[in-house]
Amino acid sequence: MSDSPIVPVILCGGSGTRLWPRSRAAKPKPFLPLVGDSTLFEATVARCTPEAGFAPPVVVTGAAHVTHIEAQLADPAGSQVIVEPSARNTAAAIALAALRLPADAVMLVCPSDHHIADPAAFRGAALAAAQLARQGWLVSIAIAATAPETGFGYLQRGEALGDLGFRTARFVEKPDLARAQQFIAAGTYAWNGGIFAFPVGGFLRELEEHAPAILTAARRAVEAGRSDGHLFFPASGNFAAAPSISVDYAVMEPTAHKAMVLADMGWSDIGSWDALHSALPRDAAGNSCKGRAELVDCRNVLVDSDGPRVSAIGLEDVVIVVDGDEVLVTTHAGAQLVGKLPGAANQ
Amino acid sequence: MSDSPIVPVILCGGSGTRLWPRSRAAKPKPFLPLVGDSTLFEATVARCTPEAGFAPPVVVTGAAHVTHIEAQLADPAGSQVIVEPSARNTAAAIALAALRLPADAVMLVCPSDHHIADPAAFRGAALAAAQLARQGWLVSIAIAATAPETGFGYLQRGEALGDLGFRTARFVEKPDLARAQQFIAAGTYAWNGGIFAFPVGGFLRELEEHAPAILTAARRAVEAGRSDGHLFFPASGNFAAAPSISVDYAVMEPTAHKAMVLADMGWSDIGSWDALHSALPRDAAGNSCKGRAELVDCRNVLVDSDGPRVSAIGLEDVVIVVDGDEVLVTTHAGAQLVGKLPGAANQ
Repeated sequence: MSDSPIVPVILCGGSGTRLWPRSRAAKPKPFLPLVGDSTLFEATVARCTPEAGFAPPVVVTGAAHVTHIEAQLADPAGSQVIVEPSARNTAAAIALAALRLPADAVMLVCPSDHHIADPAAFRGAALAAAQLARQGWLVSIAIAATAPETGFGYLQRGEALGDLGFRTARFVEKPDLARAQQFIAAGTYAWNGGIFAFPVGGFLRELEEHAPAILTAARRAVEAGRSDGHLFFPASGNFAAAPSISVDYAVMEPTAHKAMVLADMGWSDIGSWDALHSALPRDAAGNSCKGRAELVDCRNVLVDSDGPRVSAIGLEDVVIVVDGDEVLVTTHAGAQLVGKLPGAANQ
Repeated sequence: MSDSPIVPVILCGGSGTRLWPRSRAAKPKPFLPLVGDSTLFEATVARCTPEAGFAPPVVVTGAAHVTHIEAQLADPAGSQVIVEPSARNTAAAIALAALRLPADAVMLVCPSDHHIADPAAFRGAALAAAQLARQGWLVSIAIAATAPETGFGYLQRGEALGDLGFRTARFVEKPDLARAQQFIAAGTYAWNGGIFAFPVGGFLRELEEHAPAILTAARRAVEAGRSDGHLFFPASGNFAAAPSISVDYAVMEPTAHKAMVLADMGWSDIGSWDALHSALPRDAAGNSCKGRAELVDCRNVLVDSDGPRVSAIGLEDVVIVVDGDEVLVTTHAGAQLVGKLPGAANQ
């Protein structure tokens, strides 16, 4: 089955409140050109081109994002967009896609709001993961861990599976700093970035075994759904019955067939303004500016303005964002709290 | 001559670039409500009311500011506005006013862009200074020095002149920190705030003795000037010949008849954003907000926005100003550099 297609399944669900005020409910994070000229969604699609051996993508998203997706897909008519009637987390979203694909296909599940600096490394890892998936493994593309981050889950690698990857010994939820430091010191842990290669049939079997309610709800929603060109609308009443559980908890933790492929590809989840700052080109003083800015005696300052000029003096490790009627000024450390600001929470 | 009038002479010259972007060439510092609801100019006029024994004011200003002055004077028709043909510093500006007043009047020279928290204390000091001026003294209303500031000139007090004030032993230009600390420790120095009470005739005699070119130029400009209602326009060609020297250097340093009256009146020159912050009401964390603001984990932060909401996280000793198409974010220490920013310098 080495010729079975690799189908990118692109999940467009999150709202990205931690990148408020640039990311807003009406135009959230995946659809913004946060790094370079492409949006994160466009770059996600572009990493999986037909030339590189990938089938046209399946996008799973909510109705609010369809307009952005239509505008940003390279080939809308050649793609498939599954419009979730409600947000039921990643296990149900991936189930919808699996039920619309041939059982022998390989799904390459990709979040749409991450940045990958080295797309060639990503493709190499994706192809290795697809090979393992064809052998029946549910494969995580695991991110080489470069620091004891407490904001990510970790994957512990087990025995080698040829030279393609490893069994996944266990999933670890976001650890505290001491444990994260142990993981880095041990050298056998990688970050869980939410990128997976699944055999469609194998994934559905594991879902049936470990989270049957999700499979049942998704199946009924697909069976009662309707197509409109390249858009597919699962039936809302049926889908709402799906438990809202991540694919990590629903399938990857319990399955006995989990594997991982290590990827060192300049990955970032762009999970906060300081994470975005780290992913951007910076000058010798660590500053990065988008829009009109004048910086005096500043170090590690990120300015992102959609219009007004920003003049900054004497700042260090600070992010300044101007977006229409909102101005955000935060320390790098404070950036974790952006999603809890009144402006971000009450959109 | 104890019944001679005390005429407030209000100098409206500066551009206030260190309070950019709120202070702009088109609407500079004196005409902004920086502290409370009144502008600094309005508050300057209001400190010297007829009820408190002052004559109607004489305002000396440039053509660019006349519209603001007309709008903000309590009684424009009852006041006199002298429109300088060009900016020639304070000695020439005061000379213009002196030449338009009776020789037996007392001029109370006031900058228009300072804040005085205790107007009653100011009036008490002004009346004492006027009494000394009627005795022939050129009197500084000296500011009780509360910290070793290096941004102000200092006045050293000499022998007492009854219980009204003191001779001024000497003028000291802006000192370095070590000298400023010596001055504070000595206890005999006060700040030079640029507020003076002068006998009109005595001032003109001292000007003739120590800076005759200024007097000649001002006299010719007034003699060839024209009135238009309460506006007076000195002749431009003549006035341009006046050397541009401050009244401190031109008259107060060289004169043998200098005196000072000490005033503890909550004075601030609002000479920078951090100085403004110190003059404003602050909450328990030292924060002060004007306009819409959300502060999280902030200490000693000043927010001043003319429209957009400002959300700030984790900042300390920072000033954030939003004014139309300009956003300023500076540390308190950096606030001294605001006037050198491209936006402030190239208006």
